[in-house]
Order: sequence, then structure tokens, then C-alpha cells
Amino acid sequence: MSDTTDKGSLLVVSAHAGDFVWRAGGAIALAAERGDRVTVVCLSYGERGESAKAWREGHTLEGIKVIRAREAQNAAAALGAEVRFLDAGDYPLVESHDLVDELVHVYREVAPTVVLTHTLADPYNGDHPAAARMALQARVLAQAVGYDAPGEPLGAPPVFFFEPHQPEQCDFRPDVLLDITPVFDRKRKAMECLPAQQHMWDYYTDLAKRRGVQLKRNAGPNLGLPHTTMGEAYARVYPQVTGALA
Amino acid sequence: MSDTTDKGSLLVVSAHAGDFVWRAGGAIALAAERGDRVTVVCLSYGERGESAKAWREGHTLEGIKVIRAREAQNAAAALGAEVRFLDAGDYPLVESHDLVDELVHVYREVAPTVVLTHTLADPYNGDHPAAARMALQARVLAQAVGYDAPGEPLGAPPVFFFEPHQPEQCDFRPDVLLDITPVFDRKRKAMECLPAQQHMWDYYTDLAKRRGVQLKRNAGPNLGLPHTTMGEAYARVYPQVTGALA
Amino acid sequence: MSDTTDKGSLLVVSAHAGDFVWRAGGAIALAAERGDRVTVVCLSYGERGESAKAWREGHTLEGIKVIRAREAQNAAAALGAEVRFLDAGDYPLVESHDLVDELVHVYREVAPTVVLTHTLADPYNGDHPAAARMALQARVLAQAVGYDAPGEPLGAPPVFFFEPHQPEQCDFRPDVLLDITPVFDRKRKAMECLPAQQHMWDYYTDLAKRRGVQLKRNAGPNLGLPHTTMGEAYARVYPQVTGALA
Amino acid sequence: MSDTTDKGSLLVVSAHAGDFVWRAGGAIALAAERGDRVTVVCLSYGERGESAKAWREGHTLEGIKVIRAREAQNAAAALGAEVRFLDAGDYPLVESHDLVDELVHVYREVAPTVVLTHTLADPYNGDHPAAARMALQARVLAQAVGYDAPGEPLGAPPVFFFEPHQPEQCDFRPDVLLDITPVFDRKRKAMECLPAQQHMWDYYTDLAKRRGVQLKRNAGPNLGLPHTTMGEAYARVYPQVTGALA
Amino acid sequence: MSDTTDKGSLLVVSAHAGDFVWRAGGAIALAAERGDRVTVVCLSYGERGESAKAWREGHTLEGIKVIRAREAQNAAAALGAEVRFLDAGDYPLVESHDLVDELVHVYREVAPTVVLTHTLADPYNGDHPAAARMALQARVLAQAVGYDAPGEPLGAPPVFFFEPHQPEQCDFRPDVLLDITPVFDRKRKAMECLPAQQHMWDYYTDLAKRRGVQLKRNAGPNLGLPHTTMGEAYARVYPQVTGALA
Amino acid sequence: MSDTTDKGSLLVVSAHAGDFVWRAGGAIALAAERGDRVTVVCLSYGERGESAKAWREGHTLEGIKVIRAREAQNAAAALGAEVRFLDAGDYPLVESHDLVDELVHVYREVAPTVVLTHTLADPYNGDHPAAARMALQARVLAQAVGYDAPGEPLGAPPVFFFEPHQPEQCDFRPDVLLDITPVFDRKRKAMECLPAQQHMWDYYTDLAKRRGVQLKRNAGPNLGLPHTTMGEAYARVYPQVTGALA
Repeated sequence: MSDTTDKGSLLVVSAHAGDFVWRAGGAIALAAERGDRVTVVCLSYGERGESAKAWREGHTLEGIKVIRAREAQNAAAALGAEVRFLDAGDYPLVESHDLVDELVHVYREVAPTVVLTHTLADPYNGDHPAAARMALQARVLAQAVGYDAPGEPLGAPPVFFFEPHQPEQCDFRPDVLLDITPVFDRKRKAMECLPAQQHMWDYYTDLAKRRGVQLKRNAGPNLGLPHTTMGEAYARVYPQVTGALA
Repeated sequence: MSDTTDKGSLLVVSAHAGDFVWRAGGAIALAAERGDRVTVVCLSYGERGESAKAWREGHTLEGIKVIRAREAQNAAAALGAEVRFLDAGDYPLVESHDLVDELVHVYREVAPTVVLTHTLADPYNGDHPAAARMALQARVLAQAVGYDAPGEPLGAPPVFFFEPHQPEQCDFRPDVLLDITPVFDRKRKAMECLPAQQHMWDYYTDLAKRRGVQLKRNAGPNLGLPHTTMGEAYARVYPQVTGALA
Repeated sequence: MSDTTDKGSLLVVSAHAGDFVWRAGGAIALAAERGDRVTVVCLSYGERGESAKAWREGHTLEGIKVIRAREAQNAAAALGAEVRFLDAGDYPLVESHDLVDELVHVYREVAPTVVLTHTLADPYNGDHPAAARMALQARVLAQAVGYDAPGEPLGAPPVFFFEPHQPEQCDFRPDVLLDITPVFDRKRKAMECLPAQQHMWDYYTDLAKRRGVQLKRNAGPNLGLPHTTMGEAYARVYPQVTGALA
Repeated sequence: MSDTTDKGSLLVVSAHAGDFVWRAGGAIALAAERGDRVTVVCLSYGERGESAKAWREGHTLEGIKVIRAREAQNAAAALGAEVRFLDAGDYPLVESHDLVDELVHVYREVAPTVVLTHTLADPYNGDHPAAARMALQARVLAQAVGYDAPGEPLGAPPVFFFEPHQPEQCDFRPDVLLDITPVFDRKRKAMECLPAQQHMWDYYTDLAKRRGVQLKRNAGPNLGLPHTTMGEAYARVYPQVTGALA
Repeated sequence: MSDTTDKGSLLVVSAHAGDFVWRAGGAIALAAERGDRVTVVCLSYGERGESAKAWREGHTLEGIKVIRAREAQNAAAALGAEVRFLDAGDYPLVESHDLVDELVHVYREVAPTVVLTHTLADPYNGDHPAAARMALQARVLAQAVGYDAPGEPLGAPPVFFFEPHQPEQCDFRPDVLLDITPVFDRKRKAMECLPAQQHMWDYYTDLAKRRGVQLKRNAGPNLGLPHTTMGEAYARVYPQVTGALA
Repeated sequence: MSDTTDKGSLLVVSAHAGDFVWRAGGAIALAAERGDRVTVVCLSYGERGESAKAWREGHTLEGIKVIRAREAQNAAAALGAEVRFLDAGDYPLVESHDLVDELVHVYREVAPTVVLTHTLADPYNGDHPAAARMALQARVLAQAVGYDAPGEPLGAPPVFFFEPHQPEQCDFRPDVLLDITPVFDRKRKAMECLPAQQHMWDYYTDLAKRRGVQLKRNAGPNLGLPHTTMGEAYARVYPQVTGALA
């Protein structure tokens, strides 16, 4: 099912400008290294809710957007991805049919074979579930031949939730542990493109180690995975379709 | 992770003699066709709880065991699997450390790369969860170098629950839809080795169609799956370990 | 509690024009045969999301609505129900207070004694949960004497979710198995009023058989139910109120 | 399905001698008034875990059993039920195959049409889930023609969990609210047969009022239920089988 | 963590004018007696959905609001709290960004150290979850330095859901049992300020007794709690932060 | 409720000899520093399941027990706790009434005011849930005056599950984040008493940092917690009893 000789297309729908780096940087770099197209859609810049330092330094709203955009572009480039900003505003990120419609157009354009987004629950940040609801709704709409948008109706790409900051409080239970060892250096470089959140560099490096230890535990010791295996955790939204159990 | 050039080894732990045919026949035939070793362990013959017709015809307990064993062997042969009977009794299947120890020996011997068993909940049949608990416990014990049994410590083979008769009442939520179209004929032939339950042949053929329709729905229409796709549903016990999201 | 000599009134709130046939046709026909009033409210025609064939044949949006309306009317007639179309649009079905208010008026007018609608979760179709949320909200509003709509305040009719296409993925767990054997012929005739989805006729016939087998399993073999028992599955939203456990 | 002209048979499986009075006294009295046979099986007398007052008064273990048995017999008589004591010991109530086998014999003998027992979770009292597990297992065993016990194989009587002391902590969610108004006087008299727990008389009277208020809320104000409606709450284990939604 | 010499500030966000009395009167009175500031925000007066008696007596909408406001003020005074009415309308209480923004301003003004609100699920009253969603969203927005509202960014005050009318149907599981014995008289007096719902006075007195019995059960008999302990139940939204387990 | 001038008594029930160090070392050291009595019960030494290195080095079963006991004693001393070994065997840890009875005797002897143990689910290690089930059962038995063991009946000490290795797979959701910053050095020293698992020292230091970050996030930035806050996560089994919400 999932093995095809064609190149894939990875779509990441992110509420704020930095989320895709911390939470899915490994998956993005792996896809890019495989030669897949990777498109990151940032619904907002995180200009109000995730830019405390810049506000304290006295930047204006527009100034903060420029800073965040530049940083996210650098990070995306380091990972091998294209990034787009829909500038829909944050805190709150307001759900609207226009915004969903914009996402449908993106789906129809990039025809993703895999989709990544936030979890549907996050008591610490309401923008994250709002982004996830819109990403999921747009995916279903894009499948309908009767939906009025250019391009072919979408297939049924699998969707994965990436890991939230406090996973247990967000009902996040890892279904998939992704081995990001081969690209961890790139993820680290991308993180270092976000200088305002320097304390996160080590935090997410530690998390990658932790998920790596769990990955080895679930893979079994016989597979010869290196001591320094790094991992990212994901949860599936739809059942996996496959021709062989493994 | 899961892609290796070595041949795999599939272990199926089944409470009664017929369970593996109805619920996992497709997965077994696929593995056998790939050249994997397949070992089915029937903890009992289902001689008391799943042989109503034979009891009504007046057979003795021992006579029923012989009938059930022969049928299961025929079905296993049709699927390409080896079958073993531990003759632990059914209705109830009594959990014991000796029985778990027997299973540990099997794990160490066949070194499974994939394990299939029943769900942990089944309000219609207490033997099924009992089998699952023992299969899971034995797998963990077999991993310990300090457990006293011949052979090498086991790795960490993934475990899948196969589909129970009333899935929603058993908290069964499909995580994996397996395409069994290429081997459905073999599954049908294996089912026909169990003449006492002839009404089940069509029931499980219908179920395979139903899961096949869902499989196509989750795979997307673009994949060109045939109209007659047949499927089996499974639930994962442990997170999937992988090098690529798909 | 639930046994009364008065005639009942069944209200079915359906997102699209066809849903009530596949999912609740048996319950509708049973109610109609008992002499209950049955009112089906289709919030949309399913003109965008569930009319792929018509779109591929080149029909216009308005043309598709006409086709879908006629088919749904035929199916409703075959079941013995009245059908109303609110033409609120689909894909997406947009929740609004006006639409909820229309539903409150329907509740006050038909004074349902039983309500059927979609499940609150459906990752394959966002219109279904939207319809369910509005059906549930309108029911509560209609109960308030202070809500400004004609008619008497509503009582507290029980609500049942009918079965979604992929029940386990929609957190659907059958609480009630309804014996639709006496009216299955009518349900089949109603399905045959929807020619564009001919593959569904057998799919939902198979499902009725499957739920029928489970119904017999839960009823016990002593009740003398026929081999060909047909069933529909429902989930209760509110506790059952009764004068006797059974 | 559940409407039959034959008399019913209610079986209550209770861990200790008093449980059936507080938790299911209304259902028992309703069944008895309908003319159903009612059999209460007390697996123990609650001699260690639920007789603190008697221990403090200096009674011996055997003396306490005699007191508890007499009280339970009086309460059962007040409700119209037969009571049996299996004297299996409490705190802990030890699960065993012999005890399950005794229960299978009871099932085969009294052929229950309805079964009541404890919830499967109770972090305050491990004997309650132990009783429930055995009651459920014995019911399944009694259904098998191949199980060696006198009498006909059991059908599939519905099972209801009665309400535990702290329902939310026991994952108890009421599926059924039973109107016990017509027999509440008998339940009160039965409670008064248990003098050592006098503080419980009012506690369970208050609970019946509370469940009565909820019953009226779920039934709707139009049904003309009296202001003093009394209720008991139950949770279903298996789906309800019915010929009409209500 | 939670022990500070500064005075606390309790914020209660309530959908209708009476909710805070029945459900959180004890917590409010305890806080007021400790000298904490207590602010109750009533998003509506409950003028349509919870004033059936007044409607039947022929009052106008505006007249009912006046009655409900006066009663709520009296009750708040009896408890020692300030009450504010946002007059957002009820049945339905419509979520809006303006209303959330008003709440953000309240958060920034009163700087709560503890927040109380409704549960996120309530199938009997959609206004309750709507109030809870807005209370939670506003709390997160108020934390962001970039959110445009006067005052300092909010800390992370713990949030507790108070008990809904039918707790099990609202997925309410008590995490905290609060001893309100010292202030129960004040709660009773506050309840008596709501004469239209006189039947609730005893209902919620009985509930306080019931939660009191459970409180003693969970505290252990050695603590010497009085026989007449009264309690209120709460569920935590966020993990408790503490310097000592107890 | 939880504030008392008497000294507390902390009881930790651990399946293997090392568990209490990694998972609860901070809580133990905090209690010891407060002057509470701390008793750690190791049901086994972890001699088979958690001593892979020693087995590979060729030690005998008895030799491994001696090593593990000495290490655990050193770690307990570093934390300020007494440790006891019940030597019940591991892999599997077999539940028995004798072992539960031993635990009842411990409960009666040390009269714990707080209890810590494993989670009830752990698909990676069956000994952990077995230990938890016995710890919980013994606590309930020890409360009964009629249970035949020396000492006074136990009160109702709160029970906390400590964090398992893969929390999400064990249904572990932190209810309490404990600030262990003041004693982290002691925890680190205790970990260093277990030389065979040197890779765990950093792993659990990283985890303490991670839980510390979350602790600060849930406590709010205003509390002035240090940048290097270290934490441990716990889940409550019973509702918290308190006189003030915080």
C-alpha cells in the first residue's frame, strides 16, 4: 500500500511558526532526504502567544511577525522544506471557513501522501487543537469531487499527530516511534535557527534521546540500533493500511 | 526497522482449535507465501466451549478432541502453517505458570518476529483474554536472559490482536487493516476444513469484504485497489517502530 | 415508562439525503408499521460530499439537489416516513444558530418520543458530528419554556446514535441491537431507491445480517429467533428509564 | 425479545450478605411482585470486612456468620427472595474454579432471565470485582453444552451491574434508571433488617431519591411521574436486544 | 507551591445566575472566610433555560433577568462573594470572541489563584460546556504577554470543575473532596436566597451529606471527622503542583 | 486533612530492588528530610528480569540476589529509608495470598500515611502491575478490624502510582507534579549506588528536568521557581481530601 516508487509529498499543518521544528523536524528532514516534497503551512506566526521575549524587548506586532517568519524560513531551509504563512492570527487562532478553504486549496495543490498536525486536545494552548480540527476538516473536504477548488480530489493520506509539550495531558499516546537518528543533526541545526527559545534546544534534544531509548526498547535489542538512537513520537488518526504485518 | 532480508517467523497463540482460521487466516497465509515460518499454538481444542454440534451428536470428550485436532491440522496445512496443541483444557482455560512456561519455551524456540493473539477483553468468552494474557506474559519472560529456558533471549516482536466476534464489545479498535486479497482463496479453503461451523464460512467471507471496503476507504481511491479487496483488522499492542511515516 | 397507548413520534436528524436509509431504515419502518409518525429531517442533500457519481456525470449543483431529493423522497415513502430538506449545504455542513432554531421548531411541532441521529465523532465526515451536535442542542433548547418558539416545551425523548460507516473509528459501541427482521424487505426496497450507490445495497444487507447474528448471540439461543434475523445497532445518549430490568 | 408471558427468574450474585439489600433491593422487590423467582447468592457473609461493629462487640467469627446470615434472610424475606450462602470467605474473597463451578450449577438450576452483580472495578473493596468476575465467568460456562453440570445450557440472560458506594471511582455510569417507587417501602423494610448499619438506611433512602430525581429528568416531565419517584441505577454489560427503540 | 502568605483570589465562571450556589457555594464560603477575594462571573442570568417558574407566572424576559440578578446577588452576599453579570444570553449561551475577551479582562483584573467552572461535557445543558470552554480559553489567552488587555500576564492558576447535576453522564470523576462542614450553614443560607428552586435546597443538602460520607471514607476513620461532615466534589483540569505528597 | 503535626509514615511497595530509586527517589528523600519514617518493601530483587548484566557476567541466582540487595540497601540509605526484601521471586512475580498477607502485616506495623507503588498497567513488565494489585489489596484488607493480623486497623492513606518507563503505554497520566529540587542531589547519589545501570543515571536526571519544566509550566511563572527545578510525576488512586482548593 504505502510502498510506491513515486516520490511522496509531506504536508505539515502547524498553528505557529515554530511548532514544526520542535515537534516534527525529524520527520521533515527524513522526507526531504528521501526526495519527497515537504510543505509546511504555518497558520499564524505565533506572534502573540509564543513570542514573549520579543514583546518584552518592545517589538511591534508587525515587527514580531517579520522576525518569526525569517526564523521559520531558516529552520525550514535547514530541514529541506518549503514554508508558507497564512497569517491568520494567533491567541486565539480563530477557526473560519475561509481558512479551511485555503487549506483545501493547499491539499489539492500539493496532493500530500502524508499529513502531520497537532493533537485534538491541548489544555495549554487552544490554537493547537484549532489547527488540527481545520487540517482534518480540510483533508475531508479536499477528497470530495463536488468541493469547488482547483485540482484533483485528494486520496486518503494518513494523518499523524506530532507530540505536544505535555503529552499525557493532551491524551497523546505514541502509536509510532520514528527513528530520526540519520537526520538528527539537521533537526538540531533547524532548532538553532530559533534563537529566542534557546532553552528548547536541549529540551528537545533530551526528548529525542528519550523517545530513542523507547524506540530501541520496542524494536528489540537484536536489531543493532546504535546507543545514540534518536526518536520522534507520533499518533495515527486512521488505521494503517498494509500488505504485511510488521 | 521492520524491513529485513531474513525470513520472518510468525507465532499465533490461539485459545481454541478454530480461532486462528477465522480471525487470522489471511495474515497466516500471507506470511507463509512470503516464506516466513508460521507456528500456531492452540492452548486447547475448544472441546467443551466450541463444539456444541459434536456434543449434541453424542461424541465423547476425547473423541471431540481428535476431531477438532484433525480439522485444525487440515486448516493449518491449507494456510501453510504448523500447528501445536498444548491440550490445556477449555471452558475454562485455566491460567497457570506451567502453561506460561510452555509458551516461553515456544517463544525461545521459534523466535517470532511477529505475534498474533486474542484481545484482552471479551465478555462472551473468558478463554480468549486468558490466552492473550498468557501470550503477552510469556513474551516478556522470554526476553529476560535470567529466565531459565533454552535458547537466546527474545527480542521485542510486535504483537497484534486479531478481531474478536463482537469487536466493539471487546474494546477492539482496528489500528491496522491488512490486505488479504492475494490469499483469500487459501483462507476460504482453510475455513472449509471446519465443516461443523459451515455458517461461519460466509460470515467471515462477508467480514473480509467489509474490512476490505474500509481498507480501500483508508487507503484512498487513487491506489487502484480492486473492487473485491478483502481485509483483516488488527490492533497493535506496542508502538510501531519505523524509519519512515506512511 | 416507555410503554404508552398513545402513538409515538420518531424524529430522524440526518446530515445528508441518504444517511437515514442505510443507517436507520429498519427503525423507521418498524415505527411506521406500528403507526407512529416518522419525520426525517435532511439538513442537506449531500450534494457536494456524497454525490461523486453525479458530479462525474456533469450535473449542476442544483440538478444534483433535485436528483437527491427525489431519491430520498422515494426511499422515505418506501419506509413510511415524511422527509423534509433544510437545504443548509454540505461539505461543510456549517453549524449556525438559525439552523438550530429551525430544528427547535421541528421538535416543538412533531413532539418526538424518540430521536435518531449521527454519532458525535466521525473522522471520515465532519458533517455527521455537526448534524448530531445541532440535533442534540436543539432538543435541549426545545425543552425550555423560555425558548421563543411555538408549541409546548418538549419532554425528554431518548436519543439514539445510528451506526456510522466505520463504527470503531467513531467510538460507536452498540448499546441496543434492534430486530428489524419483520421490515427488512421494506429497508431493502428503500435502499434500491438510491441507484447511484448500488454497491451499498449488498453492503448494508450484509451488515444487517452481521448485526442479526450478534443480536441472536446476545438474546440467547432459547428465544427461537429465525436463522435470518436482521439487525441494526444503536448507541444510547441518555440512560434508559424503565419499570423493569430486561 | 424480552417480553414473554413466562415468569422470569432473577439471579443476584453478591459478595457479602448485605450488598443485595442496599444496591438492588428495589429490583428484587419489583421482580418478586411480578411473580418472578428471585435467587440471591451471597458468596460470603461479609464476616471479616463488613462486620466491624460485631468484631468490636467481641463476637467470634462463627458467631458473626450466624448473625449476618439471619439478618440477610430476614431482608430477603422482606423483599420476596430466596437467599443462599456459599460461605466462601471474605477479605479476601478468593476466586477459585470450585466456586465458579458452584455458580455454574446455580445458573443451570435457576435458569435466570436476568442477572445482577457488582461492578468490575472497585478500588475500595476487592471482593466486589472478584464476585463480578466469577458471576460473569460462570454465566459463560453455563452456556456451553460441553460443560459438565446438570441441567440445560443457559441462554444469554442480560447482566446488570448494581451501583457501588462511590460510583465514579468504580467507572460506574448508569445505563438504566429503574423506577422502584411502587416497592420502595419493601426496600426500606429490608434495610431495617440490618440493624448494625442503621446509618445506611437514610443514606440509601437519600440515594433512591437522588436517582429518582434523575429518572424523572431523563423520562421527561410529561410522563406525570410523582414528586417522590424513587430510583436505582444499573449499568448494562451486554447490548440490549429489542424489537422497538424506546 | 500552594502555600503562600498572600491572600488568594478565587474566580468562579458560571453559565447561569444560580449555578455557583448549588455547585460551589461551599468552596466560595471557605475562600471568603479565609479572607480571599471571590469573584463570581455569571455569563447569563439563566433567564430562558432555568427560570421555568417565572415564565409560567407570566414575567417578561427583562423582568426575569431582574429577579434572577437580585437573587444571585443575595446568594453571593451570603457567601461573601462579589458577583458580576455579563448578560450574554442563555439557551443558547453563544460562544464569541468578544465574550472570551471580556473574560480575559476579568482574569487580568482579579488575577485569580484558583478558578472554578463547569465540566466540558453536559448532555443536559449545552450552556455549561460553552461556559467552561470560554473560561479555559480566556485563562490561556490571559497568560500571553502579547495579548492586548490591561494588566499583568496571568500565572497558571489551577482550575477545578464543579459537580454537574448528573455527574456520571458528564464524565465527572471527583479528584478532590472538599470539606465544607465549617461553612455549610452559609451555603444553606445562600441556597435559600433562591426561592423558586426550593426543592433544590434539600437536594443539594443531601448531596453535601453524600459527598461528606465519601470524604470520610477517603480520609480514613482515624482523622476524627464529625459524623455530619459535608462535602463538595471537584475535578482537576491540570496536574497538582506540590512540594509534598499527601 | 493532610496537615498534621504528627510525623508521617511513607510506604513504598516495589516489585524489584531498583524501582524505588529511579521512580520515587525524590519523594522518599523529601519525606525522610521532613522526618517521616520511610519503609521500602521490595517484593523481589529483580534477580531474573532486571539483572541482565550480572547474568551475562556469569553470576549465580543467589549471587545476583546478594548484589542487588546490597545495592538497594546503599541506595535506600542514601535516601534515608529502610528497605525490606520479601524475596518472592520475579519474572514472574507470582501473586499469592501469603504474599498479600505479609504486606498486610507491614501495613499494620508501619501505619503508612502515604503509599507509593507501580501502575496497574505495564505491557513491558507484568511484575509491576502484580506488585500494584497486591499493594492495593493489602491496603484494603489492613483496614478491616476483622482481618486477622496484629495491630490497629489501617486508616485510608492516599496511594500514588509512580511513573513507569513508558508512561503513555501504561495509561499513566500525571495528577501530581512533585518538586524534588531540594533533594535531587540525594536522588542522584542513590542512583549512583546502582552501577550496573549507569545509563539510567542520566536518563532519570533528564526525566527529572523534563518533569521540572512541566511543573513550572503548571505552577505559573510568578512563583519564582528556579530554572533548574526538578520534578517527579505521580498519579492518584483515590480522590484528594482537603479543606481548601489549591
